[in-house]
Amino acid sequence: MIAAVRIAIVGLGLIGGSIARALRRAGPPGAPLPDGVRPTIVGWSRRPDGPAAALAEGILDAAPPSLDEALAGADLVILAAPPLACLELLDELGGPLRGNLPPGATVTDVASTKRVIVERAERHGLPFVGGHPMAGRETVGYASADAQLFVDRPWVVCPGATATPADVSRTEALALACGARLLRLDPATHDAAAAAISHLPLVLSAALAEAVVGGPAWTAASTLAASGWRDMTRLARGDATMGAGIAATNAVEVAAGIRAVRAVLDAWLVALERPEPDPGQLAARFEAARRLLAGR
Amino acid sequence: MIAAVRIAIVGLGLIGGSIARALRRAGPPGAPLPDGVRPTIVGWSRRPDGPAAALAEGILDAAPPSLDEALAGADLVILAAPPLACLELLDELGGPLRGNLPPGATVTDVASTKRVIVERAERHGLPFVGGHPMAGRETVGYASADAQLFVDRPWVVCPGATATPADVSRTEALALACGARLLRLDPATHDAAAAAISHLPLVLSAALAEAVVGGPAWTAASTLAASGWRDMTRLARGDATMGAGIAATNAVEVAAGIRAVRAVLDAWLVALERPEPDPGQLAARFEAARRLLAGR
Repeated sequence: MIAAVRIAIVGLGLIGGSIARALRRAGPPGAPLPDGVRPTIVGWSRRPDGPAAALAEGILDAAPPSLDEALAGADLVILAAPPLACLELLDELGGPLRGNLPPGATVTDVASTKRVIVERAERHGLPFVGGHPMAGRETVGYASADAQLFVDRPWVVCPGATATPADVSRTEALALACGARLLRLDPATHDAAAAAISHLPLVLSAALAEAVVGGPAWTAASTLAASGWRDMTRLARGDATMGAGIAATNAVEVAAGIRAVRAVLDAWLVALERPEPDPGQLAARFEAARRLLAGR
Repeated sequence: MIAAVRIAIVGLGLIGGSIARALRRAGPPGAPLPDGVRPTIVGWSRRPDGPAAALAEGILDAAPPSLDEALAGADLVILAAPPLACLELLDELGGPLRGNLPPGATVTDVASTKRVIVERAERHGLPFVGGHPMAGRETVGYASADAQLFVDRPWVVCPGATATPADVSRTEALALACGARLLRLDPATHDAAAAAISHLPLVLSAALAEAVVGGPAWTAASTLAASGWRDMTRLARGDATMGAGIAATNAVEVAAGIRAVRAVLDAWLVALERPEPDPGQLAARFEAARRLLAGR
């Protein structure tokens, strides 16, 4: 139960649009709205197509032409933008638009990295609770938005130092209203964890493409590529600006992960570059990796 | 049109079983059998469960208790086993079982690497045409066999020096009968190509697991893992013995691929370990990888 009856979504792409659709659907257990109260949802994006489409569909109640108008009267402001755009938005909210943020409003975000973003919000003294719904898909934009996107997915919540308990509950209620599972982490722990299972894999995926595509074997290789290749390069097919924002705002953790992978690859080279590679040793190595993944 | 009316499948796992099912279905364009002629399919595995199940289902006509009995009268012998097992089978066919291989019979295989296997067959002077259907799935064993597994997939054919044109046509007819698309490559080209899009990705997938699972961030990371992590580690969840056989018999190409990936990762480290990572430079790098994958 929260008082967030006016919600401003800044960014109406896949994530912002999916939040809007999920909130409009209403009804999942833990929904944030008092019975019978319909939230007012307003949306604004730098590009107006998303809000216009969402307004036309009745998902949004209003699509004001400017960010400051979108903020008017908001109880909860959701920055649904990639990491670097979130930093810029926080600079606006903490700077020129400070006076447009209603007293008592909570600001949250959905970006893939948290430490740099939470620190920026704290520096501005904003009532900020970082958020990261662990859900996505390759397609981007409002047209791909899906009310079910967050159902049963983790939604990490990272309260900033300047957030009140009310800010935290409001953000958690948002996640629950979208059907997600709450997970409270400090920003550094989140970033190390997200680097391990998401940001490092993203860079590895790109590195694989860089190392292989166009190389000497590529002409024949491209005709053979099957599901393994598709899976291993899927992340690298995503949005480059998003990837760059993630890498730039989680560079230390991603670099540490790359160093760990390099050390492992060096051990593989030792095993493979012997005069006679030992199948038993290689099998033990693959089996160990398999057991790690199976949690055994 | 081939004369292969008696087919011996050695190994009744996912691939061997899928071939048996595809041949029994019959009927796709290019089917190898003269109209009205039903092939006789016999199967043998080191473990008898697959052949027993296939016999019970009417997919096999016979499941002889020994390899030498399975070879009797065969026109086409399909070694449906992982790379190292294929090498052992070739040693048997070229050695103790030489007299059991009917004159004029063709031997082919379906293993993921070709150079070492074709060389071994050539050393034995066997009528061998290497084959590699580019199809698979995580599940293993005859229970997962699927008549549609090869439909529209590439099936690489690598004729050995001791293969006759008839051996080659017979192997190609097999691939066509399974619904696959033929691709003739020399073994070295195949192995370099398969390393690029399959064997190197397999090792990278295992290396990612080794570098991340159980590390300092793992406790939190494991709760966040989503589709990206699942996709990037899928290959490493496969059969370890198969992986080891692939790595051992294509070690030179896989090692070359690892070195290429390492060089790319070193460039990522330079970009990420600057005091202020440059989002524009990182975006250009991700965008370049994306364009490579999109073939632009």
